[in-house]
Amino acid sequence: MKSMSSDHTDDTRQLVEVDLGVRSYPIHIGTGLLRDAGLLRPHIRGRQVCVVSNDTVAPLYLDTVCQALAGFDTTQFIFPDGEEFKTLDTVSTLYDHLLGANFGRSATLIALGGGVVGDMVGFAAATYQRGIDFIQIPTTLLSQVDSSVGGKTGVNRPQGKNMVGAFYQPKCVLADCATLDTLPDRELKAGLAEVIKYGLINNREFLHWLDANLDSLLARDRQALAHAIRVSCEEKAAIVAMDEREGGIRAILNLGHTFGHAIETAMGYGNWLHGEAVATGMVMAAAYSQRQGLLSQADAEYVRTLIGRAGLPVIPPDTIDADTFISLMSRDKKADSGRIKLILLEQLGKAFVSATVETEDLAAFLAPGL
Amino acid sequence: MKSMSSDHTDDTRQLVEVDLGVRSYPIHIGTGLLRDAGLLRPHIRGRQVCVVSNDTVAPLYLDTVCQALAGFDTTQFIFPDGEEFKTLDTVSTLYDHLLGANFGRSATLIALGGGVVGDMVGFAAATYQRGIDFIQIPTTLLSQVDSSVGGKTGVNRPQGKNMVGAFYQPKCVLADCATLDTLPDRELKAGLAEVIKYGLINNREFLHWLDANLDSLLARDRQALAHAIRVSCEEKAAIVAMDEREGGIRAILNLGHTFGHAIETAMGYGNWLHGEAVATGMVMAAAYSQRQGLLSQADAEYVRTLIGRAGLPVIPPDTIDADTFISLMSRDKKADSGRIKLILLEQLGKAFVSATVETEDLAAFLAPGL
Repeated sequence: MKSMSSDHTDDTRQLVEVDLGVRSYPIHIGTGLLRDAGLLRPHIRGRQVCVVSNDTVAPLYLDTVCQALAGFDTTQFIFPDGEEFKTLDTVSTLYDHLLGANFGRSATLIALGGGVVGDMVGFAAATYQRGIDFIQIPTTLLSQVDSSVGGKTGVNRPQGKNMVGAFYQPKCVLADCATLDTLPDRELKAGLAEVIKYGLINNREFLHWLDANLDSLLARDRQALAHAIRVSCEEKAAIVAMDEREGGIRAILNLGHTFGHAIETAMGYGNWLHGEAVATGMVMAAAYSQRQGLLSQADAEYVRTLIGRAGLPVIPPDTIDADTFISLMSRDKKADSGRIKLILLEQLGKAFVSATVETEDLAAFLAPGL
Repeated sequence: MKSMSSDHTDDTRQLVEVDLGVRSYPIHIGTGLLRDAGLLRPHIRGRQVCVVSNDTVAPLYLDTVCQALAGFDTTQFIFPDGEEFKTLDTVSTLYDHLLGANFGRSATLIALGGGVVGDMVGFAAATYQRGIDFIQIPTTLLSQVDSSVGGKTGVNRPQGKNMVGAFYQPKCVLADCATLDTLPDRELKAGLAEVIKYGLINNREFLHWLDANLDSLLARDRQALAHAIRVSCEEKAAIVAMDEREGGIRAILNLGHTFGHAIETAMGYGNWLHGEAVATGMVMAAAYSQRQGLLSQADAEYVRTLIGRAGLPVIPPDTIDADTFISLMSRDKKADSGRIKLILLEQLGKAFVSATVETEDLAAFLAPGL
């Protein structure tokens, strides 16, 4: 596998189509896509465009994107970086910005940044004047493989993540691997957690490819990254196409997330990265699957080892006791009148949505000594 | 036409189906429907129900609705009556109420009240955990014939009405004519404005029926009201079925609304009722249609006379100058990059969406002396 060094090479370029009827859209994957106005412009139907980003990403890429938008009436909205700003208050300020600029229903929002930017801009687009167009330009591995695909948008509440939101699809997604060059190591690893997830839930072959290519990915080999992003997007697109609004099968994409959201909420948003919490959550889901007699000890160990090798945490914080876990998990959106459901593994590469879990058994599992 | 006096009669009962594929739903119209648990229960799929109302309507009808919900886990959320509470802040408080009660994705919200309650509860349902079920129980004439049908939900911003919202359909609508007994005269008349609108935009025969039966309607004859509600809902349902998300033809339902919203915003929410502002807006739209050579003077006069006979205002407040009108109208959601579109009449019973309007001509029309 050849290592790429130039921004201008494009032999990493790939295309994944998300098949959702009238709401179908393309995901372009490659290097140097931000400069490629031809990818962006066909998806903008009016003249008004607002590029939304945070104060970490904007200094790096905003100018490039704005150059690709020459000729449009473009405004910018920059907010502070961080999960703690993924709130209705920030969205409210964005509404005011759009209203102040007289944005109408043919306007387009562009989300330039990670999952926080994408989720929040998607929600703003879903709700501004009952819905306007938006485009995702994810600049983190996590958002390229997960949050920018599938139309889940939303903001957090003090009581839990993404408790307010909508299903709303973008017009296109541009995943530019070159933007990963500036990503902190910790966030790259957090993104790998979601990549590993696709292997675990539905693609054992990809799981073994990841096992074999983990060092290349950690070294940011662009072809390895482009392949991992493509397979991840394909896996997600296929599941979303079957179940756009998460009536059933789509829930398996939440492997590790019920435990993970509880960790994020208990530790305060932003102290554990989402991918880190999901990584530990997947180790816990594998261990619980083993406890249920579904997974062998060797397979559960394989999950723990792979996630550990990716530089991700495999043990939850010892400050969260079993009661806190259960209380937070019962508020999960998959919960049914407070009864907890989990995504479990019946084998490596095959996840399923559990029936509601026995709280006593879960409490025993979560007790010290896990 | 016989006058009804008992709550228990149901020879006013009617059914209108809104045909939107998987999002289709029934509108039940009649007398005493609130007591009829059999209408409500089939549309509730979980156990958790929250009835949302305001402090004017709740003392009158909340107990009756809660009795029909015996057996469900029912909570109540009551907020102050008034358009000024149709805000993201109120919705935010409702989210907290639902999160505090551990409401999950199988929960149902019931909107009991007028358009403010229905629009806001619909928006909360559209966005709570990315969408839960809701049911409309409109208790004003205006909401029974208009806002409870068609899935437009939203809240106001200081910059304009319904600037934040979503298209989101209820599971069913119960329009109980008995609730109109307690409606103040001024609100009954405001509701008649929207009823007259259906005649003007698409049903000349109904317009003449209204002209002939206006006194019965103002005297709250239940059979006359049930008929007016049914025809209004049928007209709206047919248009919504053609164009759910207002890509085109649905916009004709906004006859009078571009002028009307400007009046409401300029006067401060709640000083003019929505129906009053729309009534004046329709007179203005008819006058502007006459100015454009579309409508005869006699027809424009017919509109003004009918609306005046319904006890509705036919002249805009003289405190709003032409510049203010145009500035507010250019923020209308139908506006295209700030250029104003209007719904005009090519004849009585036939409305259309105009091309963008010449601002100078509109300013001349709006100058004193209209």
